[in-house]
Amino acid sequence: MKYTELSPSALAAEYDKVLAEFEGWKAKGLKLNMARGKPGKQQLALSTELLSVLTDPADCVDEGIDARNYGELCGLPCARQFFAELLGCKSSQVFAGGNASLTLMYDTVSKAMTHGMLHSERPWCREEGLKWLCPAPGYDRHFKITESFGFELITVPMTPTGPDMDLVEELIRDPKVKGMWNVPKYSNPDGIVYSDETVRRLASMKPAAPDFLLIWDNAYCVHGFDGAYVPFADILSLCAQYGNADMVIEYASTSKITLPGAGIACFACSEANLAYLQKLMDVQLISYDKINQLRHVRFLRDKAHTLALMEKHAAILKPKFDRVVSILEREIAPLGLAEWNRPKGGYFVSVNTLPGLAKRTVALVKEAGVVMTGAGATFPYGKDPNDSNIRVAPSLPPVEELEQAMEIFCCCLKLAALEQCREQ
Amino acid sequence: MKYTELSPSALAAEYDKVLAEFEGWKAKGLKLNMARGKPGKQQLALSTELLSVLTDPADCVDEGIDARNYGELCGLPCARQFFAELLGCKSSQVFAGGNASLTLMYDTVSKAMTHGMLHSERPWCREEGLKWLCPAPGYDRHFKITESFGFELITVPMTPTGPDMDLVEELIRDPKVKGMWNVPKYSNPDGIVYSDETVRRLASMKPAAPDFLLIWDNAYCVHGFDGAYVPFADILSLCAQYGNADMVIEYASTSKITLPGAGIACFACSEANLAYLQKLMDVQLISYDKINQLRHVRFLRDKAHTLALMEKHAAILKPKFDRVVSILEREIAPLGLAEWNRPKGGYFVSVNTLPGLAKRTVALVKEAGVVMTGAGATFPYGKDPNDSNIRVAPSLPPVEELEQAMEIFCCCLKLAALEQCREQ
Repeated sequence: MKYTELSPSALAAEYDKVLAEFEGWKAKGLKLNMARGKPGKQQLALSTELLSVLTDPADCVDEGIDARNYGELCGLPCARQFFAELLGCKSSQVFAGGNASLTLMYDTVSKAMTHGMLHSERPWCREEGLKWLCPAPGYDRHFKITESFGFELITVPMTPTGPDMDLVEELIRDPKVKGMWNVPKYSNPDGIVYSDETVRRLASMKPAAPDFLLIWDNAYCVHGFDGAYVPFADILSLCAQYGNADMVIEYASTSKITLPGAGIACFACSEANLAYLQKLMDVQLISYDKINQLRHVRFLRDKAHTLALMEKHAAILKPKFDRVVSILEREIAPLGLAEWNRPKGGYFVSVNTLPGLAKRTVALVKEAGVVMTGAGATFPYGKDPNDSNIRVAPSLPPVEELEQAMEIFCCCLKLAALEQCREQ
Repeated sequence: MKYTELSPSALAAEYDKVLAEFEGWKAKGLKLNMARGKPGKQQLALSTELLSVLTDPADCVDEGIDARNYGELCGLPCARQFFAELLGCKSSQVFAGGNASLTLMYDTVSKAMTHGMLHSERPWCREEGLKWLCPAPGYDRHFKITESFGFELITVPMTPTGPDMDLVEELIRDPKVKGMWNVPKYSNPDGIVYSDETVRRLASMKPAAPDFLLIWDNAYCVHGFDGAYVPFADILSLCAQYGNADMVIEYASTSKITLPGAGIACFACSEANLAYLQKLMDVQLISYDKINQLRHVRFLRDKAHTLALMEKHAAILKPKFDRVVSILEREIAPLGLAEWNRPKGGYFVSVNTLPGLAKRTVALVKEAGVVMTGAGATFPYGKDPNDSNIRVAPSLPPVEELEQAMEIFCCCLKLAALEQCREQ
């Protein structure tokens, strides 16, 4: 059955039925949340040991460094080594930071504005009309950073193999294009893994701007939940192979490995970039919290042990993603109102409705007591040209609440579609 | 005995004697450190309980907020309340952050550059020739921040009651003067407590720049070690009284209350400023580490309990400061080679040698195996016009090492003075 094929009276009947269902949900006064990629309580419990792994002062000294005291701008050597193994780079390329990779990314862009990057002719704030490439749908917080600093955001459509590289290679010929956001593995929100070909084309591109910044947010580097661990290339080596050693900065964190509010983060880049940034950061801080870095290394140990922990996360997450997809398949697929991905990792199901339905659906969903990411948020300036993409974040609610939230979502999507049919 | 009063032969004899002493120290191959205000091991041990105060996941929820998860940009309400009580302001005026107040200060100036402050007509990076007031001797890391962003640093001499206010009131008539550093209690390095009159004059001043930023780094707000706790005015209320509510931002941290590398920090300002900054910071982060905030509140509890802890720090610090001063009095006072303060709080003894001796003394001290803060560091651009000020940081070494380091310091100061006499 397609709504567009219904007779006016059948359409009216279907509308009344779905509206009644919607009113029924509203009457329940539920308060559910599928807005952000927030781990649920069960996942937080996996890292309880983190809280007690470091309680003896004698344990606070690592490789001769007392983690309790000042010092070690680039982080504890063991924390740098931990991230280096995770990302496949060298520990001399890693800066171990605080609890937020987002902050490290913001600070990089901010320093480019006020001081310039290693190969900048001047601070970016002294240039006019700067632009930034934004693969979309993408991560709203990325887009907000470059929007906040006044860049013109240029949308690059995502394909199943990553950003449209023909377009990227065209756009970087403009010296005003200063950088590009990337979530190369399990992209937010599509769950796309960049293909080897895409990664190679990105690593080898020759932007007109000498200080082009390829931001490589490896937020979900070990965050698969369906199938075996998916290896990935070390983007730092790859860029170096193509003579682009200083073009890329990679970011990662344990926010979705241990505790979102109290993890540790890092960036990794060429030694030349690190030396440059270190000099700037030496003015900003003495070091990030080294006790929490040490706590993490003691708890996570190494990559193998971390991957074992990620399997426990997967066991909690996969049933939630399965429920989201199966409810969509049951309720929405027969009506042809939307398509969606079936991610094998990451934190989101990206739903693409028929054009013009996303905003109305999210508004109705909110009325019925479910908070979702705002429609359009996955596009630059929060404007989805088709009003179609909706990001579903299934991780936070327990399964039974998630099912209710998805029933409501499907009901609201139907209602939005029926409203649209009736208007036409 | 004054060196300048000695006969040439007596001078030569004294020189030989002091040089021999210096060579003796050198031969010992010591490695001692009086460079930074780093707490010693005994002090770190006072906060051992901090490491184990929060190990049960059930304890991670405070006022309904799970500190482990994302959220609460301005910090946990209980952490904001803790700092509010400490500083005497309202919790609605407090932003609770990560482990470094220095980073919060840097970020404030950085945001002023890229976005402007609440009352700015434009981002500061769009203006030319900006200036910043630097009471000196002062904190080298403060000066470095504004130097890094390209401000012209203007030295304001410190007096026993705080910065020279006649000069400050003159300088702020220049609209290019955008702000001023302050450590109002136990100033770094002089240990000066701003007088009530100085504080009132600062709070009531009318700078020509509409977006003048009075940075109030209350780094040593509860850090007395000699005598009863010294209360201080709430600078936020005081500025508000004079119609300057949005002129000031205050900073504090627990770096020298609990663990330097793993404490918590805050800034406090008018609600209007906080609303403005919060909007900018919302792009930069989701929140700082709330688990560490909660850990601190559980451990420190409140102001009274914190002051009790500070008395234990005082019991460790006071003997160290006493030793520094008594060795200076024994070795240097009779020769009239320098003067120094006798601080009742803070982390430093500020030594002012006769002109032209500071650099040479610190160089000799280094040769003999003692690291000190570089001479000149306490002045803008690292340039002390009299080459006179040396910052002694007695907190890190155990008492017996501190005594050695101070013997070496006095020996080197004598040697530098004798060299100078011989040259003249």
